[in-house]
Amino acid sequence: MTDWTKQKQERARRLEAAAPFVSGKVVEPGNVTALLKSVICSEDRVCLEGDNQKQADFLAECLTQVDPADVHDLHIVQSGLVLSEHLDLFRLGIARKLDFSYSGPQSAAIARALDQGKIELGAIHTYIELFARYFVDLTPNVSLIAAVSADRNGNLYTGPNTEDTPTIVEATAYKNGIVIAQVNKIVDEVPRTDIPGDQVDFVVEAPRPFYVEPLFTRDPGAVTETQILMAMIALKGIYAEYRPRRLNHGIGFATAAIELLLPTYGEQLGLRGEVATHWALNPHPTLIPAIESGWVQQIHCFGSEVGMDRYMSARPDVYFIGHDGTLRSNRLLCQNAGLYACDMFIGSTLQIDLAGNSSTVTPDRIAGFGGAPNMGSDAHGRRHISDAWLKAGREAAGSDGPLVRGRKLVVQMVETFGEGMKPAFVEELDSIALARKLGMPLAPVMIFGDDVTHIVTEEGIANLLLCRDADEVEQAIRGVAGYTPVGLARDRAKVEELRARGVIRRPEDLGIDLLQADRNLLAARSVRDLVTWSDGLYAPPSKFRNW
Amino acid sequence: MTDWTKQKQERARRLEAAAPFVSGKVVEPGNVTALLKSVICSEDRVCLEGDNQKQADFLAECLTQVDPADVHDLHIVQSGLVLSEHLDLFRLGIARKLDFSYSGPQSAAIARALDQGKIELGAIHTYIELFARYFVDLTPNVSLIAAVSADRNGNLYTGPNTEDTPTIVEATAYKNGIVIAQVNKIVDEVPRTDIPGDQVDFVVEAPRPFYVEPLFTRDPGAVTETQILMAMIALKGIYAEYRPRRLNHGIGFATAAIELLLPTYGEQLGLRGEVATHWALNPHPTLIPAIESGWVQQIHCFGSEVGMDRYMSARPDVYFIGHDGTLRSNRLLCQNAGLYACDMFIGSTLQIDLAGNSSTVTPDRIAGFGGAPNMGSDAHGRRHISDAWLKAGREAAGSDGPLVRGRKLVVQMVETFGEGMKPAFVEELDSIALARKLGMPLAPVMIFGDDVTHIVTEEGIANLLLCRDADEVEQAIRGVAGYTPVGLARDRAKVEELRARGVIRRPEDLGIDLLQADRNLLAARSVRDLVTWSDGLYAPPSKFRNW
Repeated sequence: MTDWTKQKQERARRLEAAAPFVSGKVVEPGNVTALLKSVICSEDRVCLEGDNQKQADFLAECLTQVDPADVHDLHIVQSGLVLSEHLDLFRLGIARKLDFSYSGPQSAAIARALDQGKIELGAIHTYIELFARYFVDLTPNVSLIAAVSADRNGNLYTGPNTEDTPTIVEATAYKNGIVIAQVNKIVDEVPRTDIPGDQVDFVVEAPRPFYVEPLFTRDPGAVTETQILMAMIALKGIYAEYRPRRLNHGIGFATAAIELLLPTYGEQLGLRGEVATHWALNPHPTLIPAIESGWVQQIHCFGSEVGMDRYMSARPDVYFIGHDGTLRSNRLLCQNAGLYACDMFIGSTLQIDLAGNSSTVTPDRIAGFGGAPNMGSDAHGRRHISDAWLKAGREAAGSDGPLVRGRKLVVQMVETFGEGMKPAFVEELDSIALARKLGMPLAPVMIFGDDVTHIVTEEGIANLLLCRDADEVEQAIRGVAGYTPVGLARDRAKVEELRARGVIRRPEDLGIDLLQADRNLLAARSVRDLVTWSDGLYAPPSKFRNW
Repeated sequence: MTDWTKQKQERARRLEAAAPFVSGKVVEPGNVTALLKSVICSEDRVCLEGDNQKQADFLAECLTQVDPADVHDLHIVQSGLVLSEHLDLFRLGIARKLDFSYSGPQSAAIARALDQGKIELGAIHTYIELFARYFVDLTPNVSLIAAVSADRNGNLYTGPNTEDTPTIVEATAYKNGIVIAQVNKIVDEVPRTDIPGDQVDFVVEAPRPFYVEPLFTRDPGAVTETQILMAMIALKGIYAEYRPRRLNHGIGFATAAIELLLPTYGEQLGLRGEVATHWALNPHPTLIPAIESGWVQQIHCFGSEVGMDRYMSARPDVYFIGHDGTLRSNRLLCQNAGLYACDMFIGSTLQIDLAGNSSTVTPDRIAGFGGAPNMGSDAHGRRHISDAWLKAGREAAGSDGPLVRGRKLVVQMVETFGEGMKPAFVEELDSIALARKLGMPLAPVMIFGDDVTHIVTEEGIANLLLCRDADEVEQAIRGVAGYTPVGLARDRAKVEELRARGVIRRPEDLGIDLLQADRNLLAARSVRDLVTWSDGLYAPPSKFRNW
């Protein structure tokens, strides 16, 4: 007779083992390591939240203090691997296997740990791909999460950084897993219930508020004139041509420049209300001038951003704000919005090859993909139309008709030479060498060339939709690759032919006045300007304050 | 000075207008129509839940009783348009515009209403595509939802049919919209909190429990020997070849036959534990024998299914079950799992053209797509590998290497002649005629040919991955189209060449014994057999009981 309740019994056993260390659902900070030892077993799948912003850092620290003789070979399944404690788990032998999405500051340490055999890599996912697997074959046994406050029944207020939490908790709690939350404060009543208490087993008031990384703040003072030129090229050559209303921006300076040009150059082009009205976007401070100038109707956010909370609370017509008056973000829902409801994704990358494949991986840095491969991919399941989407699809097909689908605009912006004058265009991506070294059957590519529609550099736009074969793609890319070796090796006659066909468009072809590409064109030229635009509501983190 | 709180003020105004008809959050059934009139304004976007199973039918009925002079031109945004009341809203002039996903029983009525100009059609979406737009440009102003029970603070227990509810409520409540729930019972304490009360404005105890359609129950007694043969072909030619462990099945009899053959023919093929271990799936009763035979490790569900609740509650190691002991389903999460975490989608269709495009639309029936275009599409954002996925991708590319992505297996099963001996294979899809008639720029295609990897008929398998051009696709399709006009017009020499290359495989090529294609091969031959397999836990709806 099969026993179909093993997970439930195991859960009951662990909760009983936890009893000496808890009082109801509340745990004292000093008891957390003992609690973790009692509810986590070797080889468990553990999610140690781990978003790209909010971090359950106190629980991470406590988990590193568990004796590896007691708890070892954990399988870490979480979107962000960004704290040194996350790496410590592998170094100490507490964890062995890893499935994740984004590493950021730990990208070099992950590369080293992989090299040393300290980490057995499952896969590098996009966020919602990992979340998808939470419900299929990577369901967490234990999740350690972070929230702003909890009541004694375990009801959680996640605050503006809701991010991954509802998804993690749903996967864990409804599969007889165990959920432990660190909170900044245990209160009598939470301002709103982001996570119902019956999905939460234990809460601990951490000795300090959870850590949040300001990932999406770009100082307008650091935007260069080259980036301004690229932003003008994108606005005139892509925004004005396709008129995408619903979109996502990546986090680089090039897209920050676009945001800062909307109220100036965008206004000159007559685009207000015609493009970029609805967003799936993190709360980029550089979008404040466009919001204040009436460009933006609605924004749904993946997470929050340090310093933006008061501004967003004061703009509930634009942002998703709870009845308590603070932002509600949700990474899964916003990534899904980016996949299925947006006409354009535009972002930066580090390397592009001759087929348009791009990557942010280098042999000594494994940064993860975050959301880019998801947002930057054409959703074949999309069935609603928009003018922007249909125009892109018809350009790709070279025809129209009732069976010609649209295409998502996937735009990669890149300066021909990156940091340290490293060419952005390469014959072979570094990630291929990495795949060889690690024996990966598929190289970690951020966006595959067949999904890229346009590449924008300071030399112009390559419209890959209009290319009819791989050779044309290669020459279109070489044709905007400037003085890099890839650019210098162009077939000049073919590039001129592509230019005559509008596949390549230079600033002069677009009627862009290069003299206008000046910092005076930015709606805000400093973080302080952003504060002024926000009517004093934006409170930048101290590292961005120089006044 | 811009007012950024218009939505919040409008919400407050409406709540005040509602005050005479409510007592706290509780509304008497007799007051609901007056309440709706006070909180819904003409041209509002309204979600009248409306999933493919659970229906807020009492609220639908009340909404039809609002005077169209007071409330008109509503924009209905909901996944399922399945009740006659949903159509009445358009007939009466209360609603005008429609964005939806699935119609089912109302497919003929929708076609007529479109024809008569009673409905202005936005788009037919997949479920998660519509949910995506809830957060971007189709955010509901008012949502009318259904749950099993509520307490007086508005905390909701949705029960096993959670389905769309959390997604609808999050989009509405966090954008200053209004949420009204009909519940079967108002109780002192809900068994678990599926929706926190601070996201719910009003609850009403409906005069009768909400309606649920048993959509996913297929009577084993109605499975034909042709369907058994097709299931054998699929198991030996696809499951055994690619070994997909994570998958979704559509709702037709052909896939029900596969489910019923797992413990018999699948066992003969030695596939237990090797394929179909993890599922994104509705609670198909026909999967019970495979579950009981130890084939299935885990299933996440879009919704529930009438009669399956007690069985699932007793199998918490397999299903996602709350601490209260009942199923938690979630359509968004499960569709995302189907998109990003599954190696295979296999389902039926009505019509297939020479390029492999398929549709369930006919000129007088607009059935909607449901989840098929999403589950049946290759997710370009997927970055984790599996053997099944890589094998499919390499077949498509004709090569491997670090830049060769995998492919999702998208299998369409169809008998060459459908109901009323209508050929399933056609030169042109009926949906193209419909698109012309309605002036749609894109025909309503369920799955586009470029996403289809295999077509299975009783004549064999066409492996489109191995086809190198459009002509080969056409001949591969003709080669399994049997005695339909499309099949008869095959190029016999080319079809034999494709067969020699393994692009087409006949039952005899697969070593399938046609004599085995017998109803005795079914693990259950009746609904009663399913009840027996379930140890009496499955309680089929009365229309499926004949004993």
